[in-house]
This record gives sequence, C-alpha cells and structure tokens, in this order.
Amino acid sequence: MPQAQPQAGFQLFQQHRALLDQAVEATRSRGYWSPFAEMPSPRSYGEQANELGKAAFEARLHQPFELNQPGTVGEVGNEVSPYGERLEVRYPKVNLDVLLHAAGQAAESWRKSGPEAWVGVSLEILTRLNQRSFEMAYAVMHTTGQAFMMAFQAGGPHAQDRGLEAVAYAWQEMDRVPRTAVWEKPQGKNPPLKMEKRFAIAPRGIALVIGCCTFPTWNGYPGLFASLATGNAVVVKPHPGAILPLAITVEIARGVLAENGFDPNVVTLVAHGAGDSTAQELALRPEIKIMDFTGSPAHGEWLERNAHQAVVFTEKAGVNSIIVDSTADFAGMARNIAFSLALYSGQMCTAPQNIFVPREGIQTPEGAMSFDQVAQGLAQAVRKLTADPAKAVEILGAIQNDEILARLEQSKANARPEDILLDRQELAHPQFPGARIRTPLLLKAEAREQIRFMHEVFGPVAFVIATASSAESLALAGRAARERGALTLSVYSTDPGVIEAAREAALQGGVALSENLTGGVFVNQSAAFSDFHGTGANPAANSSLTDTAFVASRFRIVQSRSHV
Amino acid sequence: MPQAQPQAGFQLFQQHRALLDQAVEATRSRGYWSPFAEMPSPRSYGEQANELGKAAFEARLHQPFELNQPGTVGEVGNEVSPYGERLEVRYPKVNLDVLLHAAGQAAESWRKSGPEAWVGVSLEILTRLNQRSFEMAYAVMHTTGQAFMMAFQAGGPHAQDRGLEAVAYAWQEMDRVPRTAVWEKPQGKNPPLKMEKRFAIAPRGIALVIGCCTFPTWNGYPGLFASLATGNAVVVKPHPGAILPLAITVEIARGVLAENGFDPNVVTLVAHGAGDSTAQELALRPEIKIMDFTGSPAHGEWLERNAHQAVVFTEKAGVNSIIVDSTADFAGMARNIAFSLALYSGQMCTAPQNIFVPREGIQTPEGAMSFDQVAQGLAQAVRKLTADPAKAVEILGAIQNDEILARLEQSKANARPEDILLDRQELAHPQFPGARIRTPLLLKAEAREQIRFMHEVFGPVAFVIATASSAESLALAGRAARERGALTLSVYSTDPGVIEAAREAALQGGVALSENLTGGVFVNQSAAFSDFHGTGANPAANSSLTDTAFVASRFRIVQSRSHV
Repeated sequence: MPQAQPQAGFQLFQQHRALLDQAVEATRSRGYWSPFAEMPSPRSYGEQANELGKAAFEARLHQPFELNQPGTVGEVGNEVSPYGERLEVRYPKVNLDVLLHAAGQAAESWRKSGPEAWVGVSLEILTRLNQRSFEMAYAVMHTTGQAFMMAFQAGGPHAQDRGLEAVAYAWQEMDRVPRTAVWEKPQGKNPPLKMEKRFAIAPRGIALVIGCCTFPTWNGYPGLFASLATGNAVVVKPHPGAILPLAITVEIARGVLAENGFDPNVVTLVAHGAGDSTAQELALRPEIKIMDFTGSPAHGEWLERNAHQAVVFTEKAGVNSIIVDSTADFAGMARNIAFSLALYSGQMCTAPQNIFVPREGIQTPEGAMSFDQVAQGLAQAVRKLTADPAKAVEILGAIQNDEILARLEQSKANARPEDILLDRQELAHPQFPGARIRTPLLLKAEAREQIRFMHEVFGPVAFVIATASSAESLALAGRAARERGALTLSVYSTDPGVIEAAREAALQGGVALSENLTGGVFVNQSAAFSDFHGTGANPAANSSLTDTAFVASRFRIVQSRSHV
Repeated sequence: MPQAQPQAGFQLFQQHRALLDQAVEATRSRGYWSPFAEMPSPRSYGEQANELGKAAFEARLHQPFELNQPGTVGEVGNEVSPYGERLEVRYPKVNLDVLLHAAGQAAESWRKSGPEAWVGVSLEILTRLNQRSFEMAYAVMHTTGQAFMMAFQAGGPHAQDRGLEAVAYAWQEMDRVPRTAVWEKPQGKNPPLKMEKRFAIAPRGIALVIGCCTFPTWNGYPGLFASLATGNAVVVKPHPGAILPLAITVEIARGVLAENGFDPNVVTLVAHGAGDSTAQELALRPEIKIMDFTGSPAHGEWLERNAHQAVVFTEKAGVNSIIVDSTADFAGMARNIAFSLALYSGQMCTAPQNIFVPREGIQTPEGAMSFDQVAQGLAQAVRKLTADPAKAVEILGAIQNDEILARLEQSKANARPEDILLDRQELAHPQFPGARIRTPLLLKAEAREQIRFMHEVFGPVAFVIATASSAESLALAGRAARERGALTLSVYSTDPGVIEAAREAALQGGVALSENLTGGVFVNQSAAFSDFHGTGANPAANSSLTDTAFVASRFRIVQSRSHV
C-alpha cells in the first residue's frame, strides 16, 4: 500500500488555494458564483470536448468497468438507458468484508495526512471531474433520462459547484479550530498556570454515499466531498439504475489519490443489482460512521431510525406547491410554471406538484380570471411548450424508470375525465426511437380531495387545486410541507400581505420560497453558493445543501494539553 | 400574553455586545479567558454577597417554589442534601399538555423576535445568574454534595462561562448567514438575471434540557443557552435529586424575559419525583425538537435510539484512564493524581478511574520504582491529602446519593484483601454531622482482570492496574475509550515516543489527553473557551461542549427569493 504523502496533498492545496478562497468568500456572500462553466461550449471545454466525451462514454458500454478494488468477486450491473439502449457496463461486484477492511486501512492513513491534503485532493478531483464533463453528461443522460443540456449542467458543472461548496464549508470549519493555543491563567501573585494545547481534527472514519437514479452526481457530490474533505474514507453506493456517473467519479477520485501517493481505497465503489439487500446491509455495518442518502422517504426514514452507528444525512422527497393568488404577468407566470412542470418530466425533487388557485379566480392586469381560465391557461402553456416534439424532448428528457411510467398511467386512470386539464402524450424522440417520453398530465382537484394530492406523485403529474382563498392555499401548502415534506414553495401575488403570509408559511413549513417567477429562473432550480437546497426543517430532508450543520459533525476535535 | 418586544431584546444585545465580542474572540483563540470571577471574594461579588446568598438559599427551604407557570397541578420535590438536611422545597408539578402548549405559543413569538433578541436576553440571563452565584453555590452544594468552593465555581462562574461559550458559538453561526444577498447571473449579451434573496434563521421550536444530579448547571447551561440563543423555547427537566439549582435558573430566566416584554414561557421547568415516567414521556413528545441530556449511558442511549423527533445531544459517562510510564517528578505526579481521585469523591464525569502502570515498574529521577512502590506512593498521596478531615471535606465534598455509596461498599466487598491499596474511610464533617463523606477506595488489579475495571464504577473507586508495558496500558485505555467511552485520558512519561503514542491513542479513542500534570491543573478540569469537553467520538458523549456542531443544527435556514 502506498504511504500517504502529505507533501503531495499540500502541493495540491496550494495549487487550488485561490479557487478555495473564492469558494469560501462565495459561501459568505451567497451571491452568484460558479467556477465551472455551465455551457457545453467549445470555448470553455475545447473544440473536441463533445466528440471526445461522447467517444469516452461509448467506449464504456458493453465492457467491464475496471477499478482494481480489493474484494472484487464478480460482476454486476444492468443499466438500461431511458433512451432505449442497454448499457451493459459490468461493474465489480464486491465482498463487503474485504472492501470495508481496505477502506478502514485507507481511512487510517488518510486521517494522518491532514486537512490540507484532504482539501487539496478534493479540489483536484473536482477539477478533473470538470474536465470530464462531456463524458459525464452522456453517462448522466443515459442513466437518468435527463436531456443532454440538463445532464451536462446538473450532472457536470452544477454538481461540481455543489461539491466545491461542501469543500469550502468543510475547510472553513476545520480552519476555525486553532491547531494550537497557549492557555495562561493568572494566579494572583504566583506565576500563572501555563499550558500548550493542541487541537487535532479527527475524522469519523468511513462514510457512505447512497446515490439516487435521477441526480446521482448533483445529489451525491455534497456528501461525498464533505466527508472526503474532512478526512474520511468514502464508500459510494450508486442506485442500481444509475451506476455509471458515480463509477466514473470514483475512478477519477482513485486516480487522483494514487497519482499523489495516497491509498486509492480512500474512495471505493459498491455497485449492486436492483432488489438485493446490499444497501441495507451496508447501511448497518458498524464501520460506517457517516451516511448521505438521497432517495425515497421510506428508505430514508428507515436509515434515520436504524443506522444508529452513523451520522445520517437524508434527502427524501416531498410535495412542492405553487400558490397562485394574483399576478402582474399571467403569460409569464404560465410559461414559467409550464416549464417547471415539463422540465425533466417532473422528476426533480424540487418540481412543483400542487398548484393552488382560489375557486373564485384571480386578478391580472387584463382583469379578473376565473379558476377555469387560470387552469386552462396553465394547460395551454404546457401544451405550447411541448408542441414541437424535437424541442420538447430537450426539456422533458425521458422517464427514468417503468415505475414512474406506471404511476403516470395510474394517475390518469384514477382521474375523472372532467378533471383532466391536459392529458399526457407520448412523444417520439427524433434520435432515440426507444425513448420513454411523456408530456405532463395536468389534473384538476378540489381542496377537499386531499387524498388525491396530499402525498407525493413523483413524475410528470400535477394538480390545479381550487381553494376557498389564498389563505386556504397557504394553509394546505404549509401543511403539505410540514407533514409530507417539501423542498420548494412558489407564490404568485401582487399583494404584499399575501407575500408576507407566504414567507411566514415558508418559515413554519421550513421550505424555500420563490416569489413571482415569471422570467428565466424556475422554482426547480437551486444554485450552489447561493440557494440552500433543503432546510432540514421538514420531512423532505434532515439537512441542507450546504450549510455549516452539513459539515460540522463529520469530524471531531481531539485535544492534548501539557504544561510549558 | 405579552407581545415580544424586539426593541428590548436589541437593547440588551447592544448592552452586552462587548462581552459577546470578547467571547467570540475567545472561542477563536482558545487561550485562557473568563468574564466571571471564579473566586468567591467580596472584591468581585460585594461585601455582603456570601451572607445574602446564604440567606436567599435558606429562605427557599421548606417552602413552595413559585414560578407562575401554566399547567401547575400540584407540588413535587423531595431533595435531601448530601450534607444531611431535607430541603423540602416544593416545586410546581405540571400538566405536560398545558405546559407544552404554552411553551409552543411562547416559541412562536420568541422566533419572531430575532437573533439579536435571543442573544441579548441570553446574555442578560447569564449576567444575572452571575450576580446570584453565592445563592447558587449553596443550592448546588446542598443538592450535589460538592464542597462549597467547587459548588461556587463549577455551579456558578464556570457554568456561566460554559453558557456564554454556547451563546458565542450560536451567535457566530447565525451571524455567518447573510440576511440578504443579491444574486446576479450573467446572460451573455442579454441583461443578467437578478434576484434578491432573504435568509431567515428558523429555530426548531421547543428544546428540552435533561439535567443531572452532580453538575446540574455546568452540564445544563450549554444546551440551555445554545437552544435559547438560537431562538428556541426551552423546557428544563432537572434530576429529581438536584432540582433547586435549575429551578433558580429558570426563575431568573423567566424574570428577564418578562421584564423585557417577552413571554416568560420561553423558559419553563418540569420538576418531577424520582422513579416516575415524566422523563421518558417528555422525551418522546412530538413538540420536543432538540434534547440535551446528561446522565447515565443507559438513559442516554435510549434517547439516542428512540427520540427520533428531536436532535439529541448526550453526555453519558465513561472509563477515564491514566497511563503511568515514567516521570520527572514522582511526588508531583502522585499529588496531582491523588487530588484528581479525591476531588468531589470521584463523582466527576472527568475523574480518572483506571491507572495503568507497567508490572516491571517505572523510571523516576530518583531511579527505578517497582509497580508496588508506585501503587503505594499513590495510596500514600491520597492518604496524606485526606488525613485532616476538616481540610479533606473541602476537597471530597459529600456522596450525592445512596447508590454511589452502595457501589463503593460493593467494590470493597468484591475485592480480595490483598488488592486493597487504600481502604475507603468515613469522615465526620465538622459542620454537618449527617454528611455522607468517604475517602477514595484504591484497588490493585492485573491487566487480565478486565471484568473488574473495564466498565464505569462511578464514585470514589479507582484501580491501579499492572500491565506488561506502556504499550499494553495505552491499548487498554484506548479500548476503554472506544468501547465504554471516556472524557479524559492522562499520561505521564519522559519518553517523547510514549507521548506520541498516547496522542495517537487519544485520537483513535476520541478522548482529550493531558500530559504530565504535576502542578495546579488536574485532568478532571475542563476550562470553557479553551478545553473542548467531550468529543462525540466515543460512547461517553455524542457531542462536544462546545464546538460548532453543538450549535449549528439547533436552527435551520429558510430562504425566500424574488426578482429585483
């Protein structure tokens, strides 16, 4: 096993110091900042970047994925692109005992290399990931079903931003603890008591990242980099449906570690097939001291209640709401909401599901609009946005898995015909005939029909719900957040009193609020270094991406003291 | 109900701003700092302070303790001073439904008064507590059994220091989140997307503090003030054996709140009798969102595993070790260890229990000493320290409860006569004939007899354990920390290699190390603003007093954003 070389780690730290300092500054001001270019343009990434990235992705297919990890006992992997093709990438199947033993040894040497090395290596991995953004984009696209542009941005630079944000918080927390202090206590006329104290950052050990199938990198990187940058070894367990993006990530991380003389087993991959018990088994292993989970409420809650040996960070799911009270720009509002519903077919944890509108209608600059006019206006905006299949597929992406498709069909089957504001449509993808493409299903509901909409219907299904008033709309949205969880809340109103009430409902529901979005920002979007994603204050997540609480308990402070 | 008056809160904040700034600076440098005078001298506290404090304490006895809390349905309380007297203070017995409803309402208005008010009120309460340090000293002395000087210092100024430290960390964390930010994202040749974002500190709601019977204020204040200063209402549940110090604390807090126009139910007391189920019932109430516990491992672990609705901070207990390898000052070492064993009769969570000494003896400036000479030297030092009962009782204090006494007797009964290095003695207190005073019992053991010493024996019992080498001593001490928990580790060695190995063992065991203490600092002592008490890295505690992780998850950040 290679010995840890703090020297190499320190060099990487120095090399990326300016990036780190800017990132730290960005976490403090929380204005706009991103070091990683979000447009897949040759100017940022090089003339050949797209072709090379695509070729690199294609070279992965129908092949074993070599990682040279300890404990490899076979092959596993059965990913199918939502665009149709079987990927047939065969990942190492691991013996957990052997792998965790190796990860434990790696954690020991990693711990000893110290904060600068942890942070320096983390920043180098992020920089390398950025260079591989095109390859990653195709990997994300053909596992999650995201359209190319989203796969590039959310899977690449935006995920890297979130990872960097976690590193910046981790560094600040570690850097705030002085390495040494002199304690000198006056003793009246006697000489003072004088001690030197040393404060060491003690990582917890091995961290586990449990990935999801919709945003494996964007949701996975914060925990991965927060744990790595605080000196922990990290075991990455991707969702069986979206292994490739995280396998590439692990490969790059292991490469950076090995090149710089660190044990590559600081970062390892545990791939497994759908329906086996690897996830549960791994989650209860005593070696696992930190856990970052993104996935279903049932699994997340099980972890929170059973993985007592670990600090558990979860992002689960929720019921996101839009309150329509009144608007100064109905067309802009309708376009904006339509885009939010269509984007990646509602498969974002931040996508709105319930749109509350007063039964008596709303005020607009063009005069009063009835509830039905509002509902039809929204349906029309979605229809218009998805009218041209070639353009629509670049917004909708593809449906990630058959369960989501089945849920969509069931939602339609359960609906009364008169409640269908807009039927879901199957679209043909110009390039991928086998792709699962659907437009959103928009349903009408009454406030009293809470059994229909007060739970998450993940996928391209949304409800326009008639309420007695905006007060009732806010009460229902707030209750959904408190009881079912929510990551976003959106309000449209020209009345400052309603905006104030929405802010109070957001505070009580512990949910991030967007007000009067009619332009180029969508409620689904959460920008690293500015927006806190999740609050930890409702069941949708027990933590936030990224605040101090997300990093501060990933390490402990162990002191020694002696007289001087 | 009085309306919250942010104005009064802001005035208190301004009034105590200099104190806060100094406290924040102290958390960063972690040198010596204390704003509260630790000597009970008339110069610091006034000529009459002692008499007035004693009279105030005595006026509490044999009386009802009025708090004017909602939901009072009777009286409860059966405290007996370890110095002999029945206190007969009768506290309000509460209906939890009524009290928690009132606390919930108070939490709502408290939340709205904002960080400056939370911090300003917290600082005012601490300042008032300081003025009442003599009254508190007698209350602590006659509930915990601490000798007067310790009761004054640990119960008063040192506890206030720890509370202030928690407020300083809380303020820093809240202050790091900008209240607003402007996010301006370039759009090439188009005008930038521009939004204003507002970030609000959202407290979790109601916090519970579960007090212990040995250091009710020192262990209780960090959680109490961390929660209060981050905008939460706090319910204080003292140990049935040590209610008075926390009841006085709650009374002072409610006074400060009410005087400044805040709802006094922001801080409430739930006193209860020994053996009833109030603690468990309260701990599982859905209204309780934060919990700070000090007490037994069994209760603490039960909370960690069952109170899923809350963020749970625990300090439990452990097995603290001393490694004797060699020394440059045997007499100083023996005096220092003897004092650590005698201080408050070993009833400190930081008191050493296991003293590991190589079977082949140690090197000293006077030449080699055999194991038996070392063991006898330690016994002799304890004997000398406790020879004069009048002086001894001022170090030993009294035994807090009969269980500790019974454990001491059982330890003696279980020991082979040849293993008793120093028998426990019953001492008469010159002032309090009914006091339970015992000197420490010092026992000899072999490293292989782990069944005797590898668990906590809380109280005045310690073992001198013969090991094959200092390497074995460190291995046993490290294992005790990892498996049973430990808050302190102490090493004596003139060999830099052994010191280095001890630091590594401390890191692996997650325990604070003291090296070669031969003077006026003792391993039991943990100074606010400098020493981190507990690491959260072994079973003795799941958190530290006080680091960022102790405060950062007591509030959440909830944002709203809109175009500008």
